[in-house]
Amino acid sequence: MGELTSLEPEEQRAVRAFVRSARRLFVQLDRDLQREVGLPRAHFEILWFLYQAPGRALRMSELADATGSQPSGTTHSVGRLEEIGYVRRELCPNDRRGWLAVLTKKGTAAIERAAPVYASSLRRHLLAPLSPTQREQLAVIGETVLDELATTALVPQ
Amino acid sequence: MGELTSLEPEEQRAVRAFVRSARRLFVQLDRDLQREVGLPRAHFEILWFLYQAPGRALRMSELADATGSQPSGTTHSVGRLEEIGYVRRELCPNDRRGWLAVLTKKGTAAIERAAPVYASSLRRHLLAPLSPTQREQLAVIGETVLDELATTALVPQ
Repeated sequence: MGELTSLEPEEQRAVRAFVRSARRLFVQLDRDLQREVGLPRAHFEILWFLYQAPGRALRMSELADATGSQPSGTTHSVGRLEEIGYVRRELCPNDRRGWLAVLTKKGTAAIERAAPVYASSLRRHLLAPLSPTQREQLAVIGETVLDELATTALVPQ
Repeated sequence: MGELTSLEPEEQRAVRAFVRSARRLFVQLDRDLQREVGLPRAHFEILWFLYQAPGRALRMSELADATGSQPSGTTHSVGRLEEIGYVRRELCPNDRRGWLAVLTKKGTAAIERAAPVYASSLRRHLLAPLSPTQREQLAVIGETVLDELATTALVPQ
């Protein structure tokens, strides 16, 4: 962040390494998924969250929370996935104002094709370069950051 | 990734911690920047790369590479930044087919307001929860992953 901010050099180094490696890894995952199975990473994530959900269905608001997207972005992506038959939208049975996104049979087949591509890209670009000790360190660091975000984040001060 | 893939439990744990913490942190940075200075994180990144570039200008293709975006996404974001007067586009002086994005005086003022917000969000949500040892570990891990991506990535096998 250079002279604009008050981060110390060791803080800048950690920030830069984390932000850049995550950004570059996400780009690589996107390219690998697009090339192998024709799915952008953002669409893969939506299908993956639906696949893991009970009944393979989530409210649109839950999906936006899970992916960390703006609701408008989620609506747009789900609309695209609906057009290609991977997802359908249904009114929530117990809340007539809410909509569910439901994984279709075709969407289930797509995520089952895509998941091994995603795993193999992660193995190659994230796991393989790290030692077992570094993987353990990364797990603890990521979980620590997630715990902090879960308690203090999203709430304006 | 559950039963769909062949990742070991310790591999899944590292992957999940990294991907989720990065995704959640990016969402939080976006919310903090939007709330404090009205800039989405994607626009902040573009202004930041321009601010650091010689002459505060980059070719559109360099900007897409730096942010890891699709060229169409970069064109769209730069168009928005041009509308609000933070960036202007100019033909490259030594390549009449290429366009430069150039940071304006108003854009410079915006990035100088936004950078401390960004740094403070990173300090609170990424740096503060980690010990000095963990920050050092994170720096080494991120740099290792970046090195790997720089050598093997983007090239289809």
